[in-house]
Amino acid sequence: MFDLLKTDGSARRGRLRLPHGTVETPVFQPCGTYGSVKGMTPFDLHATGTQMLLGNTFHLMLRPGDRQIRDLGGLHEFMGWTGPILTDSGGFQVFSLGDLRKLNEEGVVFRSPVNGDKVELTPESSITVQANLGSDVVMVLDECTAHPATHKQADASMQLSLRWARRCRAAFNAGREESVNPDAKLFGIVQGGMYDDLRRVSLQGLQDIGFDGYAIGGLSVGESKEDMQRVMETLLPHMPEQRPRYLMGVGTPQDLVRGVALGVDMFDCVMPTRNGRNGYLFSHSGVVKIRNAQHKNSELPIDERCGCYTCQNFTRAYLHHLDRCGEMLGGMLMTQHNLYYYHNLMAQLREAIETGTFRTLARSLFNDWNNNDEFV
Amino acid sequence: MFDLLKTDGSARRGRLRLPHGTVETPVFQPCGTYGSVKGMTPFDLHATGTQMLLGNTFHLMLRPGDRQIRDLGGLHEFMGWTGPILTDSGGFQVFSLGDLRKLNEEGVVFRSPVNGDKVELTPESSITVQANLGSDVVMVLDECTAHPATHKQADASMQLSLRWARRCRAAFNAGREESVNPDAKLFGIVQGGMYDDLRRVSLQGLQDIGFDGYAIGGLSVGESKEDMQRVMETLLPHMPEQRPRYLMGVGTPQDLVRGVALGVDMFDCVMPTRNGRNGYLFSHSGVVKIRNAQHKNSELPIDERCGCYTCQNFTRAYLHHLDRCGEMLGGMLMTQHNLYYYHNLMAQLREAIETGTFRTLARSLFNDWNNNDEFV
Repeated sequence: MFDLLKTDGSARRGRLRLPHGTVETPVFQPCGTYGSVKGMTPFDLHATGTQMLLGNTFHLMLRPGDRQIRDLGGLHEFMGWTGPILTDSGGFQVFSLGDLRKLNEEGVVFRSPVNGDKVELTPESSITVQANLGSDVVMVLDECTAHPATHKQADASMQLSLRWARRCRAAFNAGREESVNPDAKLFGIVQGGMYDDLRRVSLQGLQDIGFDGYAIGGLSVGESKEDMQRVMETLLPHMPEQRPRYLMGVGTPQDLVRGVALGVDMFDCVMPTRNGRNGYLFSHSGVVKIRNAQHKNSELPIDERCGCYTCQNFTRAYLHHLDRCGEMLGGMLMTQHNLYYYHNLMAQLREAIETGTFRTLARSLFNDWNNNDEFV
Repeated sequence: MFDLLKTDGSARRGRLRLPHGTVETPVFQPCGTYGSVKGMTPFDLHATGTQMLLGNTFHLMLRPGDRQIRDLGGLHEFMGWTGPILTDSGGFQVFSLGDLRKLNEEGVVFRSPVNGDKVELTPESSITVQANLGSDVVMVLDECTAHPATHKQADASMQLSLRWARRCRAAFNAGREESVNPDAKLFGIVQGGMYDDLRRVSLQGLQDIGFDGYAIGGLSVGESKEDMQRVMETLLPHMPEQRPRYLMGVGTPQDLVRGVALGVDMFDCVMPTRNGRNGYLFSHSGVVKIRNAQHKNSELPIDERCGCYTCQNFTRAYLHHLDRCGEMLGGMLMTQHNLYYYHNLMAQLREAIETGTFRTLARSLFNDWNNNDEFV
């Protein structure tokens, strides 16, 4: 399901063949939390260059419920998105609930923030929910190791995640025929906190079970950029070459370039969409904060090098005005721009790998960005 | 600037030639209050069949300000809408402020609801603001007669509006060369409350001054459907045949058909957009309230006869879900549907007038709608 087409240093140009289509990697996946990328129609998503979406299991199992989505033909049919969808396991959001959830060997029990109901999430139920959603890439349920954590804590947490990964694999195999998407792929998630030795143990354990792809979890949790970089540098060379590698919940444009440089194939993050709605816009020379008074009369587009619908048709002055008036159109147009920016960045990186010019491109990108250090 | 192409009974099929394009009438104009039809890009507006927009002078003069819009090239350039724009005079919103405004012969003074500043709106300043916006159709400043009003009150109010109309005409002629849109047209507004004799006096007074088109103001202000119908039936036969007739702030799909039947050429109303955002959706068989639990599992589109993007791609169940989760996409998709419904209704009416089948179509539309009496 994964073809490694070309490498340039450690950077990889690949192709992911999934039931709902082929994805050119490295790829960035926008987040479609409740079965919608906020403010974007499927038409708009295609126009920005979106190949593949992430759906949130936690949100969708509560509203409208995975059984209902299954009855309506699965998440693709429900939201009108014909391309591939990856779903997370729901674990990350459950762990974010803090005191509202209770963990044991079996799984995790929590109170629904929607209606207060007691809900259980186990490795088996997470797989069932994702099968009901019909996602193309199913993620194992893992425990998100706290940060900071001692070596002992991180080890125990990682071992629990490994046991859960084994149960997920078994549940996935057993439930395949009843899934809305019987040809879905299952990815494992490497944990181990900031400890390189634990990361290696986790990866080996997951490979012993066997997965279609391997994700790096537990980063972008508040650690320093140096820690993140070191964990990736140490781990990635050991990850199986013929399987896709997915860095979860990351990140800034800089993070994406660094990740690709180290051999990551897939990313997801709420940053382009959430920041877009809040007027925090990416450009080749850094961030444009549209709320700043300096943009009130600006006839410039967000980024004069950008080919998106927003930059082709609207000025910063107009976006500033829409934002100030709380107009929906502001969030829509700024989200379109940010997603286009992210996807276009990935397209540039893919092309550079193909032509063996990745390092040159990365240097030039960082050079432009460094004019604006808020970006990093 | 107006060609009357065909009549069918009193219904008129016409063509309005304006600086930013030609408009086929009868036409419905969506409201773009703050320089944006809420939740709709210009691309989306074209896709729904929008020919011409209404912009709100009151809102735009306060935010971002008409001088700023002028400096940025006018409202068309500012909001990226290349088709014709009609602007109201700002009067209606000022009068809605109640105690916050003070009226005299000169004009009206009010406190800005945005920042509390004292702002003056006179016939002359309203024309200047609209010239700065660069609208294709400029409306005179009139006093919106209170409802209910005695004959004496309605007369005095109508006479004031006539004096203001004369000042508007003079200011418009004098300021034409400095306008962002020197070929703009100026419309008068017939007032007179629910009194047919006053309506006739108002119309004659306006014709004596001379305008490019004539609007009917002061309807849809809380009067009965019978009053509205009677005022229109009595007034419209006297309105000049070779000038466009614009019924302001109206209305439901039924109101549009009734208005066209009596010879109205232009309409505007917030109904399709506001109702769309609130899940109140128009269909050939009546209203669909998407929040009703009955739609939770419905695989039907809003209207199986509809050709809009929303109906072609999404179920009621999905829209119900988006609405329940407060997702922006819900408001966007439902607004698209409602506008498409309105514009498609107008297109059907235009075609029926051309083929001399207006009465047959109107009867069939009302027949279908009557299955759902909430619609009327």
